[in-house]
Amino acid sequence: MSQPEKTRTTVDIYGRSYNIVGNEKPEQIRAVANLVDEKMREIHAVNKSLDSTNLAVLTAVNTMNDYMKLKEEFEVLQKLLEEKEE
Amino acid sequence: MSQPEKTRTTVDIYGRSYNIVGNEKPEQIRAVANLVDEKMREIHAVNKSLDSTNLAVLTAVNTMNDYMKLKEEFEVLQKLLEEKEE
Repeated sequence: MSQPEKTRTTVDIYGRSYNIVGNEKPEQIRAVANLVDEKMREIHAVNKSLDSTNLAVLTAVNTMNDYMKLKEEFEVLQKLLEEKEE
Repeated sequence: MSQPEKTRTTVDIYGRSYNIVGNEKPEQIRAVANLVDEKMREIHAVNKSLDSTNLAVLTAVNTMNDYMKLKEEFEVLQKLLEEKEE
């Protein structure tokens, strides 16, 4: 089976350049990078004393929390659908 | 209407201490912090030269990408459910 081709995309996040290698399309990577950049700037706006590492870790925590909550909701929908299909 | 009580939870992520203030339960915050810590260590294991800021930003990018993909799947399920309810 052929593997999806790896892409290499350069993005700018909070003033640093990152080469992201992966299976996603460059436009998807750029959209995701923009969201991370925005979130870091939002957290910086309310916590001006935080350094970049702090901002990035808090952004990751924030996003992981959103992910876990969405995953719970997703599982609820999956169950509902299964019930309807029985 | 009463607001949910804010919690303050101290977590350790990649060797640094963070005070997370929010509406989530402390056990939820700790679970999320553990996932972020694990992801940073996973990325470090394959990219030993990256500093903490890089690791945290890449962890945030990774998680945001997972979130966006799950959101798309979630919206597909929502549509399917709506169709079944018509």
